[in-house]
Amino acid sequence: MDINRFQDAPRVGLIDWLLRGIGQVVFQNNPLSGAVILFALFFNSWIYGTVAIFGATVSTLTALALKADRGLIKAGLFGFNGALVALCLVAFTSADFRTGAVPSPLMTVYIGFGAAFSTVVMQAMATLLAPHRVAPLTGPFVLVGWLFLFAVLKFAHIEAGPLEKPVSPEDYEAIAVYSLPTWYMGIGNAIGQIFFQDNWISGYLIILGMAIHSRISAGMALLGAAVAAVTATISGGPEGAIRDGLFGYNAALTAIALGGFFLVPNRASILYAIFGAIISTWLWASVAIFLGPIGMPVLTSTFVLVTWMMLLGQYGFAALIPVEPANADSPERTLRERARVQA
Amino acid sequence: MDINRFQDAPRVGLIDWLLRGIGQVVFQNNPLSGAVILFALFFNSWIYGTVAIFGATVSTLTALALKADRGLIKAGLFGFNGALVALCLVAFTSADFRTGAVPSPLMTVYIGFGAAFSTVVMQAMATLLAPHRVAPLTGPFVLVGWLFLFAVLKFAHIEAGPLEKPVSPEDYEAIAVYSLPTWYMGIGNAIGQIFFQDNWISGYLIILGMAIHSRISAGMALLGAAVAAVTATISGGPEGAIRDGLFGYNAALTAIALGGFFLVPNRASILYAIFGAIISTWLWASVAIFLGPIGMPVLTSTFVLVTWMMLLGQYGFAALIPVEPANADSPERTLRERARVQA
Amino acid sequence: MDINRFQDAPRVGLIDWLLRGIGQVVFQNNPLSGAVILFALFFNSWIYGTVAIFGATVSTLTALALKADRGLIKAGLFGFNGALVALCLVAFTSADFRTGAVPSPLMTVYIGFGAAFSTVVMQAMATLLAPHRVAPLTGPFVLVGWLFLFAVLKFAHIEAGPLEKPVSPEDYEAIAVYSLPTWYMGIGNAIGQIFFQDNWISGYLIILGMAIHSRISAGMALLGAAVAAVTATISGGPEGAIRDGLFGYNAALTAIALGGFFLVPNRASILYAIFGAIISTWLWASVAIFLGPIGMPVLTSTFVLVTWMMLLGQYGFAALIPVEPANADSPERTLRERARVQA
Repeated sequence: MDINRFQDAPRVGLIDWLLRGIGQVVFQNNPLSGAVILFALFFNSWIYGTVAIFGATVSTLTALALKADRGLIKAGLFGFNGALVALCLVAFTSADFRTGAVPSPLMTVYIGFGAAFSTVVMQAMATLLAPHRVAPLTGPFVLVGWLFLFAVLKFAHIEAGPLEKPVSPEDYEAIAVYSLPTWYMGIGNAIGQIFFQDNWISGYLIILGMAIHSRISAGMALLGAAVAAVTATISGGPEGAIRDGLFGYNAALTAIALGGFFLVPNRASILYAIFGAIISTWLWASVAIFLGPIGMPVLTSTFVLVTWMMLLGQYGFAALIPVEPANADSPERTLRERARVQA
Repeated sequence: MDINRFQDAPRVGLIDWLLRGIGQVVFQNNPLSGAVILFALFFNSWIYGTVAIFGATVSTLTALALKADRGLIKAGLFGFNGALVALCLVAFTSADFRTGAVPSPLMTVYIGFGAAFSTVVMQAMATLLAPHRVAPLTGPFVLVGWLFLFAVLKFAHIEAGPLEKPVSPEDYEAIAVYSLPTWYMGIGNAIGQIFFQDNWISGYLIILGMAIHSRISAGMALLGAAVAAVTATISGGPEGAIRDGLFGYNAALTAIALGGFFLVPNRASILYAIFGAIISTWLWASVAIFLGPIGMPVLTSTFVLVTWMMLLGQYGFAALIPVEPANADSPERTLRERARVQA
Repeated sequence: MDINRFQDAPRVGLIDWLLRGIGQVVFQNNPLSGAVILFALFFNSWIYGTVAIFGATVSTLTALALKADRGLIKAGLFGFNGALVALCLVAFTSADFRTGAVPSPLMTVYIGFGAAFSTVVMQAMATLLAPHRVAPLTGPFVLVGWLFLFAVLKFAHIEAGPLEKPVSPEDYEAIAVYSLPTWYMGIGNAIGQIFFQDNWISGYLIILGMAIHSRISAGMALLGAAVAAVTATISGGPEGAIRDGLFGYNAALTAIALGGFFLVPNRASILYAIFGAIISTWLWASVAIFLGPIGMPVLTSTFVLVTWMMLLGQYGFAALIPVEPANADSPERTLRERARVQA
């Protein structure tokens, strides 16, 4: 069965693109992966599942209306930042972070504008980064998320609940003891937190969805989250933050990006990815403490910063072999194509 | 009468360039527009009028001394950031924001250095943005304004009055009722605030000055300010901040830039401009809240950010037709030239 | 005797590159200069001397492992940011800022990762800035230093002493009287602070080390520090901060960079350098006040910002003659080569 048979279909095409958009949050250009990940969201909360569809739909339709590059739209690349913006705005304005709350009509309009603006920022960052052959990653989401979160707290008619979710290691008790759940829940939650899902089972379901398209990327996500948990533990990070997966979601994304996706998978790039995951873990704490006083969450900013630096840098490092962003699909495909060329 | 006959005149040339510099704050490369806008400033306060001339003069003379591009100097492009830096530093260090206060000799030297540095930053940003065919806008003013405002508060000999002007929606009472003056004063004040003029009549005089060169741009400024007032009202923004024009000055500038100036005026670009004006309105509140704790004003940062993103992005959107920054003069001229080419 | 005879030697090569790395902090690609500067650090504290060697070694070895450009490695360009990151992390986590404290084993690992990451950021910034023909300067150090300083304060196992060192003019008494030591100690300390050395004699030893390679650059460093002291005094900056050299270390670096190193030395570039030194002085206070509430030091951020702006800008100013970053070695050499070409 050809997984791409619906991508150019006249009616169901949009659904295919939206599912790819969900998958692209974790670099999976595959509608089936997207569908499983969407199921993981609904498993945790139907609100979040619906919100993700809403965000991806608005940002993708905006790209269609503005006549953006059709190939990028079809690959879901105008969907994933919109989905994340919508999830983020609901997560941090709901009384209950875990399940989210149905936004008011005005808040829904506001979220829609945020998702639409993410499409503009996506294209702007793509234009800026194109000469350097680096992808925008979730940079558009981080910028729009931060800018739209602040404003929402100040408009009387756009209601926002109290910001209940701890967003910094400072918010956790320092004395809790590391135990077995710290590890298996921490790693699962780290994957879940990429989508704002405080649910470790959802996290492992997302891994399952990734594995449909790329087992190496799924493995790198787990490795990144595990490296983060170990790094945070050795450094004496608070147990609660480790168990909630807060140290790990940036590290997991960094590990996917560097461990075979934008670099040819080999020993050097795996080591480079682990190095990046360790840095991302520490810097999550750093940015969390920096943003703490103004109550702003880190989002995926340290993944974006570390991965941009490491991808920009690698073009000067002969020890690493780059994959052009336009050709990056999965580590497996990169390996297959290199084997074919050499044969 | 040729409006450009003084631009190359041996003695009065500089005056022509300075007036264009005042006009360029609102994208009007026209000495008559600049003269009317300057009158609007003097109408509110002779101090502000004088300060604007001082800032534009210092930054333009700096550009001449450093032998910057003569064409840019003659178009007033090294004057407008200098004028804004000077206005900003006086406005936020005066006991009375509305009229400003005559700065001390040392403060005057300090302002002069700020205006001179804006010329360097203007050229630096122009160099950085040139490959992306996007203009620096008031980016140099925002950067220099922020950096110079902080320092001034800490030198014993450079006196600064108390920061009397509310700079964030949080500073306003939430309970005031929207009324007719909210609207006509709010829109006028929004235009005035572009030049730090807390005077709605000055605002309408500025619109008049703009209309001499471009009625479409003048109309877009009004439209942007009106969109901002409506957006802020629907979102429940505080009445006082709306009436003071604080929500609207960034939106007005965004609307001018996107509504026919850097994009060919048509239905798509007008909708794009309205979208940008709405985003600029919300983000003013966002940045104001972010900067609130350190007492720093937003300046025109959200106009710059939103417009940069939307102009960088539009090169990837086939629904919009760009105007090269070097050819951008007025929407009317763009329409005339396109009509001529097609004829 | 050829100063470069060890650069390509099979065994002692690395030592040559490390010494150049120490020298490159103040733009001296010369192992002898590096050795004298290293002696100046040991003169103040053996801990800082050792830490500088450690940082430069880790970042240089990282560049070798990643197979970065061999020419850049040999010129010490992957060493100086690593040395500064290590010095910075020790300085701001030691109970005694002046002498520093021996870091714990875990802290040492953490510093090592910081130095290694500075190599990645150095290459990333070099890639980004290459099209604009501007060098990364100490930008990688500032970014990594800020990011790594925050995190360290929050991990229980990575101990950090209290932040004893005042980092902002606000921390000083305003009433102390300017006296002779304000000047000679202030200028020496300013040079010392570039390397986090609170020791004015070390500062003058560093000048001595610089003078081995370039007397003009050594002179510009003194001039920049003196301009800063005068500017701060006229502006009413606190005497203690001037005497501690805090106003001057950014100004000194700006003066070296603009005063003959990246611009052909002549009357225009010297004036441009003095202008830059004045701006750097004020902006140190500005950024210090901005970062004060979160307790973060300025590092060399205002040198980097002002110098980037002024170097980017100068390509548009015909009054100044640029030196290509790849050819920038010393003002003396630039003058010699220009004389030869013209002969």
